[in-house]
Amino acid sequence: MNFASDNVYGVHPKIMAALEAANRDATHKSYGYDDLTKRAEEKLAGVFGCDLRMFCVATGTAANGLALSAMVPPYGAVFCHAEAHIAVDECNSPELFTGGAKIIGVHSGNGKIAPAQIERALKGFNKGEHDPKPAAVSITVTTELGTVYSVAEVKALSALAKAKGMGLHMDGARFANAVAALGCAPADISWKAGVDALSFGATKNGAMFLEAVVFFDLKLAEDFTYRRMRGGQLFSKTRYQGAQMLAYLADGLWLENARRANGLAKTLSEGLAKKNSVRIPLPTQANEVFAVLPRALHEKLQAAGAVYYDWSPECLGPGGLAEDEVFVRFVLSFATPEEDVEALLKL
Amino acid sequence: MNFASDNVYGVHPKIMAALEAANRDATHKSYGYDDLTKRAEEKLAGVFGCDLRMFCVATGTAANGLALSAMVPPYGAVFCHAEAHIAVDECNSPELFTGGAKIIGVHSGNGKIAPAQIERALKGFNKGEHDPKPAAVSITVTTELGTVYSVAEVKALSALAKAKGMGLHMDGARFANAVAALGCAPADISWKAGVDALSFGATKNGAMFLEAVVFFDLKLAEDFTYRRMRGGQLFSKTRYQGAQMLAYLADGLWLENARRANGLAKTLSEGLAKKNSVRIPLPTQANEVFAVLPRALHEKLQAAGAVYYDWSPECLGPGGLAEDEVFVRFVLSFATPEEDVEALLKL
Amino acid sequence: MNFASDNVYGVHPKIMAALEAANRDATHKSYGYDDLTKRAEEKLAGVFGCDLRMFCVATGTAANGLALSAMVPPYGAVFCHAEAHIAVDECNSPELFTGGAKIIGVHSGNGKIAPAQIERALKGFNKGEHDPKPAAVSITVTTELGTVYSVAEVKALSALAKAKGMGLHMDGARFANAVAALGCAPADISWKAGVDALSFGATKNGAMFLEAVVFFDLKLAEDFTYRRMRGGQLFSKTRYQGAQMLAYLADGLWLENARRANGLAKTLSEGLAKKNSVRIPLPTQANEVFAVLPRALHEKLQAAGAVYYDWSPECLGPGGLAEDEVFVRFVLSFATPEEDVEALLKL
Amino acid sequence: MNFASDNVYGVHPKIMAALEAANRDATHKSYGYDDLTKRAEEKLAGVFGCDLRMFCVATGTAANGLALSAMVPPYGAVFCHAEAHIAVDECNSPELFTGGAKIIGVHSGNGKIAPAQIERALKGFNKGEHDPKPAAVSITVTTELGTVYSVAEVKALSALAKAKGMGLHMDGARFANAVAALGCAPADISWKAGVDALSFGATKNGAMFLEAVVFFDLKLAEDFTYRRMRGGQLFSKTRYQGAQMLAYLADGLWLENARRANGLAKTLSEGLAKKNSVRIPLPTQANEVFAVLPRALHEKLQAAGAVYYDWSPECLGPGGLAEDEVFVRFVLSFATPEEDVEALLKL
Repeated sequence: MNFASDNVYGVHPKIMAALEAANRDATHKSYGYDDLTKRAEEKLAGVFGCDLRMFCVATGTAANGLALSAMVPPYGAVFCHAEAHIAVDECNSPELFTGGAKIIGVHSGNGKIAPAQIERALKGFNKGEHDPKPAAVSITVTTELGTVYSVAEVKALSALAKAKGMGLHMDGARFANAVAALGCAPADISWKAGVDALSFGATKNGAMFLEAVVFFDLKLAEDFTYRRMRGGQLFSKTRYQGAQMLAYLADGLWLENARRANGLAKTLSEGLAKKNSVRIPLPTQANEVFAVLPRALHEKLQAAGAVYYDWSPECLGPGGLAEDEVFVRFVLSFATPEEDVEALLKL
Repeated sequence: MNFASDNVYGVHPKIMAALEAANRDATHKSYGYDDLTKRAEEKLAGVFGCDLRMFCVATGTAANGLALSAMVPPYGAVFCHAEAHIAVDECNSPELFTGGAKIIGVHSGNGKIAPAQIERALKGFNKGEHDPKPAAVSITVTTELGTVYSVAEVKALSALAKAKGMGLHMDGARFANAVAALGCAPADISWKAGVDALSFGATKNGAMFLEAVVFFDLKLAEDFTYRRMRGGQLFSKTRYQGAQMLAYLADGLWLENARRANGLAKTLSEGLAKKNSVRIPLPTQANEVFAVLPRALHEKLQAAGAVYYDWSPECLGPGGLAEDEVFVRFVLSFATPEEDVEALLKL
Repeated sequence: MNFASDNVYGVHPKIMAALEAANRDATHKSYGYDDLTKRAEEKLAGVFGCDLRMFCVATGTAANGLALSAMVPPYGAVFCHAEAHIAVDECNSPELFTGGAKIIGVHSGNGKIAPAQIERALKGFNKGEHDPKPAAVSITVTTELGTVYSVAEVKALSALAKAKGMGLHMDGARFANAVAALGCAPADISWKAGVDALSFGATKNGAMFLEAVVFFDLKLAEDFTYRRMRGGQLFSKTRYQGAQMLAYLADGLWLENARRANGLAKTLSEGLAKKNSVRIPLPTQANEVFAVLPRALHEKLQAAGAVYYDWSPECLGPGGLAEDEVFVRFVLSFATPEEDVEALLKL
Repeated sequence: MNFASDNVYGVHPKIMAALEAANRDATHKSYGYDDLTKRAEEKLAGVFGCDLRMFCVATGTAANGLALSAMVPPYGAVFCHAEAHIAVDECNSPELFTGGAKIIGVHSGNGKIAPAQIERALKGFNKGEHDPKPAAVSITVTTELGTVYSVAEVKALSALAKAKGMGLHMDGARFANAVAALGCAPADISWKAGVDALSFGATKNGAMFLEAVVFFDLKLAEDFTYRRMRGGQLFSKTRYQGAQMLAYLADGLWLENARRANGLAKTLSEGLAKKNSVRIPLPTQANEVFAVLPRALHEKLQAAGAVYYDWSPECLGPGGLAEDEVFVRFVLSFATPEEDVEALLKL
């Protein structure tokens, strides 16, 4: 019963099969100029229904940092949620790739930021060059608190960003889960909503190592091959990323995986909500379930071998947690066995 | 007939099988704390016969930059060969990871640097803090010109580096080829010769994506998990690197692959040398063959579908190339078909 | 009536005289090796009663960034107040000099941070290398809100910093004002209280361009000449900084200036507090007065030519400001005419 | 007899007087918004006969690094002479300010670079994103070897730079000496010859601390206030730089000073050339004299108290120096006493 993260699970069989198939060809061009990668970019453009540029990189952290580096100067500022991955989970990596930009986290109860919060933060930017230059807004579409931005919310943020001369970056580590949750077209929640650059994650959702920086604003892509190479992120055998991407997108596998994970999360969340002793303080909108458990139950679950993380009670706001309560996160994956969810609920 | 690089070839079947096997386990710990990666580190320590720390990263470029960042401050200088990968093939990546250190390339005819050349460069460091601080020597053990450092040569460089308070980094993108060529123990050409940090490459020699920073000087490893994370180089599913490493080292596969590639290079080099019209200006010591071809022959080979790179005639020194000659590089891989070598030689 | 900042005033006549005197010698050694600078360092060591290293730089921003760079790695974190100069007034300069460290501002009502706040922030650092490494605490001794740390407060922070393996940096842009306010020895509020590195500012208090990084922890000074040079902060004619420092410290000029400025601030603060319509929400402990004015009065003062800054009402906390009120800052300088204070109070 | 550098001498009396005069005004706006600095920019624009933007900074090193940062991305390359100040005298400072760009020094006998040398270097840039992106050419107008670029030479470099999409930066640490030597208008050797950004130095030629980044390409100036602030280079009391600049430019003081220094250099150079035992291997075109002395004479001069630097014999090329010879540099300043030159020549 492992609910620690979606990345504790492995590679989807179809993606593993694609890696093997790619290995049958004797030789490929190196460094991203192979046919598989080219075809993957075309396929992705088809999925999004627009012209775009795709750059595969090693990790989501690298995708975020490199994407931001294309829109944020070293003397710039990025606005994001206080719990955003780029703010608190990437060990100064955005600072490395942008050359020292400032990541400014704003607080909110549900993992999302709203235009008013950024506007309030911008009010403090009244000291000319003594402040950094506001340069980008970054949002995590399936947020770090398990909620999902609506199309309207993204559009509102995009409108503000544009009005203030900032770019809009979307961290899509769980992009598929968001699209599955919203039931919209991928375009709706991305470029049609004003997103300039997307970190398109696949590793959590069934790939082995597949994260891509996707530019809808093609100007941002201009020198990006240099940025990726300099970041130590250009695989010599990029073909194995192209192969994963093709399999991931083929026949909607990516959305199928996401729908399954989201569905399991819904089952778990609803099951937990029925218990008197358990609270679900945040809506379960994708594949993560946040719950407040009595400590006794928590200890029982762990004793039974359930693996999941304690989460920072700060996210709950003041007075959110009683002495004998624990705030925890369960993550559901495309590969989580249904029985595990059932077993947990029984406990 | 593809001799462009060793990385145009794919993944060795045993390594692909290991990836599949790793995928059979339902779940693994993420971010490098899985058992496969731990076992891989132990296995590598066994291969080198010493205590060491191993950190898997995405690319050789990242391995070099991150390894250097642990021994070179931003105000430091690194001495290497003028044609070293870190100097001319990594798009300012060492500068990124070290925070702006200076990479100083010294010239020599055979891809190797010698203590005297570094000492001469150091003579110019007489301006106190107006010069950067000499901090490291970096050598590519199988050099960018196909030669291989001897144990004695590495020891001499190490002695100089130590005497001057500098660390010694080894770029081992083709470490296996060097060990196979020298017929020595891995320890002899690395830590026993004074190497502090090694970029241990496996991708060119049969892995899918497997490069590791290996520290023999354990102090350098202290904060390295932070550096790797910040560099966007920590895979969530590191287990697939651990699996590759275990398979790569099992039963000497890594040396077997290297020996095969080196052997093919020897065959090709000796075959070419027999032609009157072809010169082999650099000794073929590992899996790369450098040759000077008459332009007519070059065109004939290309017309026949042989793929390989022109190389910079500057490496040959002044007067090294006649008007109607071309300087080229052939790289042999563990997977290059013998018939391709024969076919090329026939042409 | 200019209360905008202490740096709108000029250079103290004795310091200007010292610059002229230094200009009478025909030649001096360049780049910090002159006698004036050496003597200034000795004099400063005498003032602090300890061995120390002094490095003159151009600006307070540079002093802070460079001092931090000696104790904080690029993957590190610095804890400071949310309104600290390094957090919000230096346009990512600490990020530049440290190579991308994270500056983490914690909130408090009076411009000071306390151990408990840092301990609470550190609780979130439970994700290993996904968090940056806690590396330093930075405090502004005369805070951005006009308060002054007591010796006991600094000692408590130092104890926590040491316990957590962090260094303690003090931004002393108004160090003289703090020492004058506390009536203690310079040593008491610096190295004896556990400060490792001090940005010793003199420009606001009567110098032309004189800020110094002072290391009490001599290990931090080891490679600092490199850092300063690399930062573009090594004046060729450093002698004119040495001369300023000698004059600034001679016969206690620095404290005399600070006492005068502090005294004027006290006069202004007490005078304002007597008005029914004015509130002084923060204690006036050095040379800055923070006041809440009725908008009508504010407009009257400005019409009369009084120059001062609006300040962010966020510092007052929630509900701190009524609709028709303005939050403002008055800064008093060693050179502010007494009549200006009187004139303002009359208005 | 101090010929070590022009910066061993002090501040010209007229500039010192201007500093005092500026100190008479009670208050000034801070951070570069004062009237003196505005007027200085206008005055400089008049001197150059064009619209321009001027940004005062602390040091020539900062001026170079910051100017380059506006035209060179972190993944870019700068071409300069192998002995250029930015390449070998600034301790990785250009790397800091550009975020890690590569400074590529090309060799030549007289301190100047020519288009053909850059073109040859560019031939090696054939590996796409594995090479950095060629972004700027940087030349030192009065070179580190005492020669001066002609207008035609600068135009030729500018034409190449433009053709290759690169900017042209001029290090004008001794810009006045070049203009005095060429007898041209300042415009001729700068923007009319295609220079985009100029480091305009005044400290060596009579100022106390006055270096300015001057942009002729106004687009480069757009965000430059941020860059300067972030670099820790924005003085709070910038007025004292404005005052120096106004005095420096008033009545042609800057050129008068330079002409005097150049004239002394000519006298010394011609005097030395008359001695049988002394060689002048590089033409004396500005205020620096490079000479090859017999060691016996060298020792005699030093015993007599003459101060000057040994210079790297590498600049002379192979076979340039006999066993018993010394290669040295004498620098003449606006303030060097004529008698010192005479005294040296007598020796």
